[in-house]
Amino acid sequence: MSTYFEEIIKTSEANCQIFDITEDVEEIIEKSKVKNGIVTVFAIGSTTGITTLEYEPGLIKDLPKLLEKLIPTYQNYNHNETWGDGNGHSHLRSALIKTSLTIPIVSTEMTLGNWQQIVFIDFDNKQRTRRIAVQVMGEM
Amino acid sequence: MSTYFEEIIKTSEANCQIFDITEDVEEIIEKSKVKNGIVTVFAIGSTTGITTLEYEPGLIKDLPKLLEKLIPTYQNYNHNETWGDGNGHSHLRSALIKTSLTIPIVSTEMTLGNWQQIVFIDFDNKQRTRRIAVQVMGEM
Amino acid sequence: MSTYFEEIIKTSEANCQIFDITEDVEEIIEKSKVKNGIVTVFAIGSTTGITTLEYEPGLIKDLPKLLEKLIPTYQNYNHNETWGDGNGHSHLRSALIKTSLTIPIVSTEMTLGNWQQIVFIDFDNKQRTRRIAVQVMGEM
Repeated sequence: MSTYFEEIIKTSEANCQIFDITEDVEEIIEKSKVKNGIVTVFAIGSTTGITTLEYEPGLIKDLPKLLEKLIPTYQNYNHNETWGDGNGHSHLRSALIKTSLTIPIVSTEMTLGNWQQIVFIDFDNKQRTRRIAVQVMGEM
Repeated sequence: MSTYFEEIIKTSEANCQIFDITEDVEEIIEKSKVKNGIVTVFAIGSTTGITTLEYEPGLIKDLPKLLEKLIPTYQNYNHNETWGDGNGHSHLRSALIKTSLTIPIVSTEMTLGNWQQIVFIDFDNKQRTRRIAVQVMGEM
Repeated sequence: MSTYFEEIIKTSEANCQIFDITEDVEEIIEKSKVKNGIVTVFAIGSTTGITTLEYEPGLIKDLPKLLEKLIPTYQNYNHNETWGDGNGHSHLRSALIKTSLTIPIVSTEMTLGNWQQIVFIDFDNKQRTRRIAVQVMGEM
């Protein structure tokens, strides 16, 4: 039983930009040499999220629209009154979507569906470099 | 330390049908012989979800009603314009509820509350056979 | 590779009280002596939640307001008609936010962002003692 850790680095435009990070995670699992176990994908930062999505042009527009409806960008948030950075909505979207996802690995492959990709979402309102922590654990 | 993997198979009516899969997961943990560790329950497919819920007739109606309010079935989704399968809402519900859940195992038992069941939800709009991946890891 | 389990106990006022449990989890990781691996934090109970949040006074108000908007306390829930405990909203909030979170541990530290705390939320409407299960797994 062993562990292997690596980070994925993405340069993000923010504002609900969605990244398909499935291949990045697959490469890390390959390097880990783990055959059976789990992988935990964790977005570092309180204005980010990790989930699964069919990564296709329609849904890439639909998910930000949904989040804008549920948690609007321009609204009176207590966070914004204190900090003045206008990203209260980003924090709340992150608390809702959450920043962690754990997936089984069986015979070196993740148990994802055919149309199910791992996506990283940057809910913040400023461009920056983003880090996603990937921990692989299991039997080699 | 060891891993044990098995899939749960369910024939689903779709349309937010909710399955209590707690006993299925318990049986897999028993077969794994793991005493202390974790179990990861992962729904395979981009129109499904896994969470916990008190599995009782009231909430089985309340949760689909809530999802219908937050993410209506009949609405203009970009996904539907491209693919014509009318399940944009199913994909978005899956991205929100998410398809993974990890639970501690202590002395062969999951640390669930008395009224806390593991549920699988099929958000899609077509009947089919569904698979849920269950990976147990820990000390025997 | 080893596992270490402990529970965090909190006396809760309920009604969306939010607890920063980051230090509690850090102390358990320290006791576990695990250097590289993962920690699973699981809230026991079907009216609770675990997520990450920048724990500051603004967001501590914003998150309950958001949940009140999405899933109002006073509304006709089928759960309430059957059980009469008036906490249908608490169960639904728990099913949405979910009760589990898994975080990588690297060189004895969780891979949290600087402003990213682990929070436990009690969505119920009655004061009580609450338990959060913490399972640490990895290499010492």
